[in-house]
Amino acid sequence: MSSLPKTPLLDKIQSPADMSHLSDGELRRLADELRAETISAVSETGGHLGAGLGVVELTVALHAVFDAPRDKIIWDVSHQTYPHKILTGRRDRIRTLRMKGGLSGFTKRSESPYDPFGAAHSSTSISAALGFAVARDLGGACDTGHGDAIAVIGDGAMSAGMAYEAMNNAGHLKKRLIVILNDNEMSIAPPVGAMSSYLSRLYAEAPFHDLKAAAKGAVSFLPEPFREGAKRAKEMLKGMAVGGTLFEELGFSYIGPIDGHDLDQLLPVLRTVKARASGPVLIHVLTKKGKGYAPAEEAMDKGHATAKFNVLTGEQKKAVSNAPSYTSVFGKTLVELAAEDPRICAVTAAMPDGTGLNLFAERFPSRCFDVGIAEQHGVTFAAGLAAGGLRPFCTMYSTFLQRGYDQIVHDVAIQRLPVRFAIDRAGLVGADGATHAGSYDIAYLANLPGFVVMAAADEAELKHMVVTAAAHDDGPIAFRYPRGEGVGVEMPERGEVLEIGKGRMIQEGSRVAILSFGTRLGEVRRAAEALAARGITPTIADARFAKPLDRDLILKLARDHEALITIEEGAVGGFGSHVAQLLAEEGVFDTGLKFRSMVLPDIFIDQASPADMYATAGLNAEDIEAKVLDTLGVAQMGKRA
Amino acid sequence: MSSLPKTPLLDKIQSPADMSHLSDGELRRLADELRAETISAVSETGGHLGAGLGVVELTVALHAVFDAPRDKIIWDVSHQTYPHKILTGRRDRIRTLRMKGGLSGFTKRSESPYDPFGAAHSSTSISAALGFAVARDLGGACDTGHGDAIAVIGDGAMSAGMAYEAMNNAGHLKKRLIVILNDNEMSIAPPVGAMSSYLSRLYAEAPFHDLKAAAKGAVSFLPEPFREGAKRAKEMLKGMAVGGTLFEELGFSYIGPIDGHDLDQLLPVLRTVKARASGPVLIHVLTKKGKGYAPAEEAMDKGHATAKFNVLTGEQKKAVSNAPSYTSVFGKTLVELAAEDPRICAVTAAMPDGTGLNLFAERFPSRCFDVGIAEQHGVTFAAGLAAGGLRPFCTMYSTFLQRGYDQIVHDVAIQRLPVRFAIDRAGLVGADGATHAGSYDIAYLANLPGFVVMAAADEAELKHMVVTAAAHDDGPIAFRYPRGEGVGVEMPERGEVLEIGKGRMIQEGSRVAILSFGTRLGEVRRAAEALAARGITPTIADARFAKPLDRDLILKLARDHEALITIEEGAVGGFGSHVAQLLAEEGVFDTGLKFRSMVLPDIFIDQASPADMYATAGLNAEDIEAKVLDTLGVAQMGKRA
Repeated sequence: MSSLPKTPLLDKIQSPADMSHLSDGELRRLADELRAETISAVSETGGHLGAGLGVVELTVALHAVFDAPRDKIIWDVSHQTYPHKILTGRRDRIRTLRMKGGLSGFTKRSESPYDPFGAAHSSTSISAALGFAVARDLGGACDTGHGDAIAVIGDGAMSAGMAYEAMNNAGHLKKRLIVILNDNEMSIAPPVGAMSSYLSRLYAEAPFHDLKAAAKGAVSFLPEPFREGAKRAKEMLKGMAVGGTLFEELGFSYIGPIDGHDLDQLLPVLRTVKARASGPVLIHVLTKKGKGYAPAEEAMDKGHATAKFNVLTGEQKKAVSNAPSYTSVFGKTLVELAAEDPRICAVTAAMPDGTGLNLFAERFPSRCFDVGIAEQHGVTFAAGLAAGGLRPFCTMYSTFLQRGYDQIVHDVAIQRLPVRFAIDRAGLVGADGATHAGSYDIAYLANLPGFVVMAAADEAELKHMVVTAAAHDDGPIAFRYPRGEGVGVEMPERGEVLEIGKGRMIQEGSRVAILSFGTRLGEVRRAAEALAARGITPTIADARFAKPLDRDLILKLARDHEALITIEEGAVGGFGSHVAQLLAEEGVFDTGLKFRSMVLPDIFIDQASPADMYATAGLNAEDIEAKVLDTLGVAQMGKRA
Repeated sequence: MSSLPKTPLLDKIQSPADMSHLSDGELRRLADELRAETISAVSETGGHLGAGLGVVELTVALHAVFDAPRDKIIWDVSHQTYPHKILTGRRDRIRTLRMKGGLSGFTKRSESPYDPFGAAHSSTSISAALGFAVARDLGGACDTGHGDAIAVIGDGAMSAGMAYEAMNNAGHLKKRLIVILNDNEMSIAPPVGAMSSYLSRLYAEAPFHDLKAAAKGAVSFLPEPFREGAKRAKEMLKGMAVGGTLFEELGFSYIGPIDGHDLDQLLPVLRTVKARASGPVLIHVLTKKGKGYAPAEEAMDKGHATAKFNVLTGEQKKAVSNAPSYTSVFGKTLVELAAEDPRICAVTAAMPDGTGLNLFAERFPSRCFDVGIAEQHGVTFAAGLAAGGLRPFCTMYSTFLQRGYDQIVHDVAIQRLPVRFAIDRAGLVGADGATHAGSYDIAYLANLPGFVVMAAADEAELKHMVVTAAAHDDGPIAFRYPRGEGVGVEMPERGEVLEIGKGRMIQEGSRVAILSFGTRLGEVRRAAEALAARGITPTIADARFAKPLDRDLILKLARDHEALITIEEGAVGGFGSHVAQLLAEEGVFDTGLKFRSMVLPDIFIDQASPADMYATAGLNAEDIEAKVLDTLGVAQMGKRA
């Protein structure tokens, strides 16, 4: 562990109130200390480093000028809030970030009154801030009181339609509302889309050394109602500030761009906005992701997410992989298929690396479409590609695919278009916690008519499923797989096209059958080993498909066993519920079957290691073993008379 | 029935190809005939009249200039496509619109090759068109060939973030793509939001009599790659065309605004765009909803959706109501509550009338928020209102609430914020068909931790549930109710706060218990009457809650009966699945229970009357009766040995 940085000023800050007597010069030094502390903390915990370093000065300025928690500072995505957490009474726990029982890697209402609105998915902040602004003006009672509502949103998040919807509504309502556009030209990947180009033009045309003057000038021209000459002033501002017309067309006063690492610009702008803003104001702030830490600034992803690292060298302490990640198996398989099939193309929503599509994009740039943080569009765009005769893979994390749910129903399923959904990060994901859990996709896909829904039990199965999806032109098909490494099975040279709706037997046994959907199969095998010691040999099957169900397999398992237990990495309403529906319709329950369905529990599970989270969920080998014993052993309890 | 209009030109049009030899003058006459035919047809069928009348000339111009089905004309929402259907080989069935077995009220891929992409929800057209454009350029094989991709989208639909996401992506990809912005200043309700104001400014500044000149001028200045002076031409166009900078900032060439009822403007603009466009082009067309039919033009909603009517007088033949609609019971109850509780406020997404919030908006305008077609923002905005101390009712149709699914999970459920979801149009909805069915909300809400999910069995129950929701500050709560009239029960003076998670017994019987969630209760009662004749008296209970389940009630019903049947107006994964999960966990199946769960079947059900659709779904009284008989009578079949 590296030695802790010296932070004499920061040591005195228990809450933002302690910043009120600091001079601007002291605030600058505080920012330097805050940056050092952030780097030091993340070097121990790993986590989102680059985004936080990019907003150190902005964080200091916001807390110096505004009066949180009365003023609501709402951080979009909020993985950039480690400095904010340090300043708001959580420094003592900052080295527990993203650990079990520790601080969340995101803002969280239950963690602190300084987190008025939690986040983790992008582009929600303006909507939430507008809600606070309206509640304030209508006299809503808030524990921390009501002051200003301030959304801090990145340029990448601006590609999401939701942000536009919120600005459109805010421009209409004309409530006092402050939006800070934190423009670092990066979301996770370099940003895409016309909005991004627009923002680039805005500041490309503004020589950086003029920004200070622009900022100083700008603040004196904020439009005020009834102020003479306001219109002319606004025009001058427009001229000075280069652009921003797009935001002005949507009803915002635009200020910027200003240098987000220069407190001499940030402080006066924020002070003036606080003193004089009436309606919605957008402050365009330029920052550098990873600012002030060379290894982050120089990294391709600007230190977006990092393992624990050596502060001096920036070297990350990554665990050695034993098996390829599911993500990479997907990416490589897709590249192999695409080499032979020019119809294969891919859509992702600002996640080319996270989804393994970076490989595909390098090899087939004209067939890979990163639509930005825009899942709604991404899904329907993929539907259009399919209708136009291509074979699109719509590749998103389970949790983010929720953003495109209506489009899945309305544009894909109802039209029976062969969009292939590659659903990464299915199940519990670890350090990102509840907001990133992929808990619902089985349930929300498997009840859509005509959909095929698969889950891979291991990385070889995933390869087969990618191949199966590519070959499936008769309607939509989805396959889900978890975050992280595979289990180390031997990989087939080529994937096979699986028979739709057919599972596979893993092990023949007696008394109890365990039917697994997804990667819990490994835990089921471990449970079976433990059960063998007790003389119980369960039958084990891999369902492969939640839809269509393998009726023959399921009914045979039910017929041949005293008990049938399903297991999946998803919430109730998914695979187990479909199995139960089949068993009920077939009258299997009529004369008794010890049926159990192991699903994610009815709680949001906080961050921990995936194994810990699955322990909390009760879906590990021990839990499966206990469930088998309980089901077989206590069969006479809790039943009808 | 009124006499049919004389349509000599239209009579010769079997497909758009037959329009190719018509002169511009004949096309104008064709448009007049098409308008008359549309009015005549809708007078017999009812349906969406105003939107179609607003695009008669545009429809003629598109089919005259472009080469459908090779060119893909994609109508957003597509309730404006009756004229399009008449011109594309479906005139012989146009008087079956929205009827069982008849033409869909929307575009539908399975209905015609001239409908390359179906719709019914708003704002999908640009995404789909971009998909076709990309598929074309990548050589995708399409049955009808590949030509231009043209999206026709209304100004109301532009408030949806999805449209912005699509433009943002299209501006980035720079593919040839044509977007026609059909600006009639109306979605269903008058539009809201800053985008709407922006569009108004665009044409407020363009004197209408200058439009012709502007249009003629504009077309000669379309930017072409490598053309000298293109940049200067573009600047001139910008000046001439008044505005459109917002679209240009997003990478579109902007043309307009032009008069959408003047073929002398539409035809040359479309011809020139077809001949010369390279990248994405947006043509801003001004139209009048209801154009050319005085009763529609004069109506508040511009003849948006109409019953059958008398062509001469415009008088609609509405059925007499016997009971208040669920929608109006909700609206009135909310007004009553809000009069006593200033914290109550409401959010809707461009549906103030359809959701009954018009009453609320009149009485409490400062507390009613129509966010436009922007469900993602609407849900999170409501979450912000709740966090700010208000009691927001987020009021949307079930099918449209799907657009806000991720926000429900991420912003509402995870934060346990007390947003009240009033879910109208739950279940099957009749003439709007599969795209508008509210089939999934039980499933996608009831597995969210901390959610309360209710369904009203009748209009009095709905009143209680509105009151219950208002009083529930401990996390999110939803209540669903169908389209149409209540069942005519006596209405209580005041609603009661229901005990959370408690159902109610309707009738004590024996052998079989039927547990209903929602308005199928009426059909269950009818089935019980029929069963009484056979000597079977089922126990009947109204679950009221899908979450939390009434464990005691359910386990008692299971214990005291040979069979338990659940019924709901929703897909598998919802109420019945949660009951099955409970029964499994409690070991109730171990020794046998004839359990059945009646849910919507695994098909998308085409339009018909709701009763017909429920017959197709197998959820009417006859089906319930048959299910009871089958379950009790054939109990020994299909079971395990």
